[in-house]
Amino acid sequence: MTTLQLDEQGRLRHFLTIEGLSRDWLIRIMETAQSFGSVTAQSVKKVPLLRGKTVVNLFFETSTRTRTTFELAAKRLSADVLNINLSVSATAKGESLLDTIRNLEAMFVDMFVVRHADSGAAHFIAQHVAPHISVINAGDGRHAHPTQAMLDMFTIYHHKQDFEKLKVAIVGDILHSRVARSQIQALKILGVSEIRVIAPETLLPASVTELGVRAFHNLDDGLADTDVIIMLRLQKERMQGAMLPSEHEYFQCFGLTEARLARAKPDAIVMHPGPINRGVEMDSQVADGPRSVILEQVSHGIAIRMAVMALAMGVVQRGAVA
Amino acid sequence: MTTLQLDEQGRLRHFLTIEGLSRDWLIRIMETAQSFGSVTAQSVKKVPLLRGKTVVNLFFETSTRTRTTFELAAKRLSADVLNINLSVSATAKGESLLDTIRNLEAMFVDMFVVRHADSGAAHFIAQHVAPHISVINAGDGRHAHPTQAMLDMFTIYHHKQDFEKLKVAIVGDILHSRVARSQIQALKILGVSEIRVIAPETLLPASVTELGVRAFHNLDDGLADTDVIIMLRLQKERMQGAMLPSEHEYFQCFGLTEARLARAKPDAIVMHPGPINRGVEMDSQVADGPRSVILEQVSHGIAIRMAVMALAMGVVQRGAVA
Amino acid sequence: MTTLQLDEQGRLRHFLTIEGLSRDWLIRIMETAQSFGSVTAQSVKKVPLLRGKTVVNLFFETSTRTRTTFELAAKRLSADVLNINLSVSATAKGESLLDTIRNLEAMFVDMFVVRHADSGAAHFIAQHVAPHISVINAGDGRHAHPTQAMLDMFTIYHHKQDFEKLKVAIVGDILHSRVARSQIQALKILGVSEIRVIAPETLLPASVTELGVRAFHNLDDGLADTDVIIMLRLQKERMQGAMLPSEHEYFQCFGLTEARLARAKPDAIVMHPGPINRGVEMDSQVADGPRSVILEQVSHGIAIRMAVMALAMGVVQRGAVA
Repeated sequence: MTTLQLDEQGRLRHFLTIEGLSRDWLIRIMETAQSFGSVTAQSVKKVPLLRGKTVVNLFFETSTRTRTTFELAAKRLSADVLNINLSVSATAKGESLLDTIRNLEAMFVDMFVVRHADSGAAHFIAQHVAPHISVINAGDGRHAHPTQAMLDMFTIYHHKQDFEKLKVAIVGDILHSRVARSQIQALKILGVSEIRVIAPETLLPASVTELGVRAFHNLDDGLADTDVIIMLRLQKERMQGAMLPSEHEYFQCFGLTEARLARAKPDAIVMHPGPINRGVEMDSQVADGPRSVILEQVSHGIAIRMAVMALAMGVVQRGAVA
Repeated sequence: MTTLQLDEQGRLRHFLTIEGLSRDWLIRIMETAQSFGSVTAQSVKKVPLLRGKTVVNLFFETSTRTRTTFELAAKRLSADVLNINLSVSATAKGESLLDTIRNLEAMFVDMFVVRHADSGAAHFIAQHVAPHISVINAGDGRHAHPTQAMLDMFTIYHHKQDFEKLKVAIVGDILHSRVARSQIQALKILGVSEIRVIAPETLLPASVTELGVRAFHNLDDGLADTDVIIMLRLQKERMQGAMLPSEHEYFQCFGLTEARLARAKPDAIVMHPGPINRGVEMDSQVADGPRSVILEQVSHGIAIRMAVMALAMGVVQRGAVA
Repeated sequence: MTTLQLDEQGRLRHFLTIEGLSRDWLIRIMETAQSFGSVTAQSVKKVPLLRGKTVVNLFFETSTRTRTTFELAAKRLSADVLNINLSVSATAKGESLLDTIRNLEAMFVDMFVVRHADSGAAHFIAQHVAPHISVINAGDGRHAHPTQAMLDMFTIYHHKQDFEKLKVAIVGDILHSRVARSQIQALKILGVSEIRVIAPETLLPASVTELGVRAFHNLDDGLADTDVIIMLRLQKERMQGAMLPSEHEYFQCFGLTEARLARAKPDAIVMHPGPINRGVEMDSQVADGPRSVILEQVSHGIAIRMAVMALAMGVVQRGAVA
């Protein structure tokens, strides 16, 4: 993986997965995002780093939210953005994925932001694109969602300086979650001392402990003494009805409330990738409460995506604008 | 309402409704639009007033025409524009309106242009947005469509200097029309001496005369001696079939023809918010005739929307670029 | 036609069809495209020629690929782009084509790029637009697709200097193809000595030889000694099922393979407007082989569309930036 993402000079060319990246690279991405934080707070929220570049949002599965964050990040870097929803266009004409890529390449585009329901789609595209093109993975099947993981790390970094001392719990549908996979990889690379996954047995992969995490089936036990609580979204559309009894029962067992939050450390933060199913993953008191950093995650998402795009295009170095 | 739209220094923060605005404010909006009229006539039709700002077209009901005018107005002010059609995205995932707003806010956007089928939606959003964000109402239910009313006033102003001496007739489905509501408010604030509404009884609100207008059920009577005739669009999609016998019968009773137009003053102007149902609200001879100012309304719509956006963002003052 | 496309000073105002254009104009368009080729190879792929202009992609039939190329071309000329899909918007409200055009005109747009399923739609619009507006035909029914024909000529020009000595074969569904019509016109104007069409009888117009081309029903015969082979796309969606036995049988008779390609000259080039139906019009060995210039066509499409837009807006002269 590393060789596909990093070029021979060790520069980031694509951003496909957290797996195989060094701690140094994760820090570098966060430092670069930090330098963009001030851009979005300015009155004129643009920098000319990608002026004259064309970023293609190549979405094979619809996600208005994710597409919007990448579109905003690209525009704030002054790139031109093309939104292409391939579930409804080229594939309808029977064109192969590779032919679609070759055609867009021939139009002199500079970057593909790829969202696909199949694991490995972004890697496949990265393996086949022309040398000057970068590929960013915006979520592929159950495999990875690395910009989401990085914005989560960046949010933790803003609240908890030292990753190594943290106890982090991830709660929910671990089995189907590309977000959880990428988060666990990032937390391990950053040296988090204890990573816990909390889920009903049906929503945990069989081999979950091989990932170096502790598994809990009881929320109260799992939350005890944690610094960071990451709630996953219950993706109803991905799940077979049989796996869960009902949303109400799920909330009874795994929904976060103020009472349950009391099990965690007093300064524990609560995260969620959004959109929240209120009354399912957590109640509104927690979602809108003082421990919630959910909206900060959204803000950090713009800065992280700007950082990853700028690094992959080689226009910034170690957190400073080139 | 005024307190929601105007801040403590009396500056326009949101533009939600005509109701409660002073005559001075309506004049100020028209003067600012006048100053943008020359921009659109130039070869380079852009001013950098909103450069680096992000305008979100937040459309909960589809309207290509209205969305297009706001998108053009924003781009000519050099803003970045995000088009979000929420009837098909976030709401499908069950996210609440407020969560959607909070998320977009966290992405550092500057303005929401809101179109919604429910009355009060834009007000609700304006009540809840962060202090730096402005909300423009692009039509909410039967309640208001204030930029449409302002472009109508601006069009009248171009043809008839003195509002106070005018007799203005509004013809059609007054009952379901947010446009008519906003127009009546604006005409009253600008001191129009006589406002008439002309409609079949089934398309007039029961309490219409409380609005300070004269009601007519006969087109010929209502048009007599008028200076301005505003035809409303027959919004078939909003109406229950039972209320009207047929389009043909409607045209017989309330459709504008050259013969009927002769009842108005010789220099009377004919307006329509578009798109026209030719042969229903009016025949083509009138729509394309010398009294029609319908396409001028479209042009003025761009200037009015630029003006409202620029005023709400605080980048212009009293008609002069800040 | 010429009078509609060219103004009284002989300048290109609209680009609707190849028919009636002089050899000099076709050369001028290619020279201008050549001057833009270097723009797209630069790091900053933009020129400010159409800054502050508004280009409207007015698509009455969906074509993500064609829309994308025009959108990219317009953005690289620094224009603002409005994408309007009229199959789903205004027409749903029953607005006439002319009313739609008049409305967009009144918003001070500068150019319409028109795609329509009916032959003559772009001409109709060009006949009725305001004097300052240009119309580009992006495909109308079976009639014309002139930018596609010009990018094909431009691609031939890059490989074969002298048009007059060439033997060019067009293979496939000539009957339904607006691309073929425009190609034949362009090849004739550029003085190509021999133009052949190769197709089953059911896919050839009855009067095809009146176009000054030689008709072949056998692929091997038709390809003999050719310099340029243009494969058409089998547009399944346009064809009645009865005309063709099956895709497999079509490939047996008219599909291009390495073996068949051997009948052409050793340096013959293979073209296709895309997207390719692999295994129907040609096999992958040919599509991805050394004679294929299919992806070059895509690249040239951007430059040709930039050229046509810039010439129609009067911002370049004879291939040099004005």
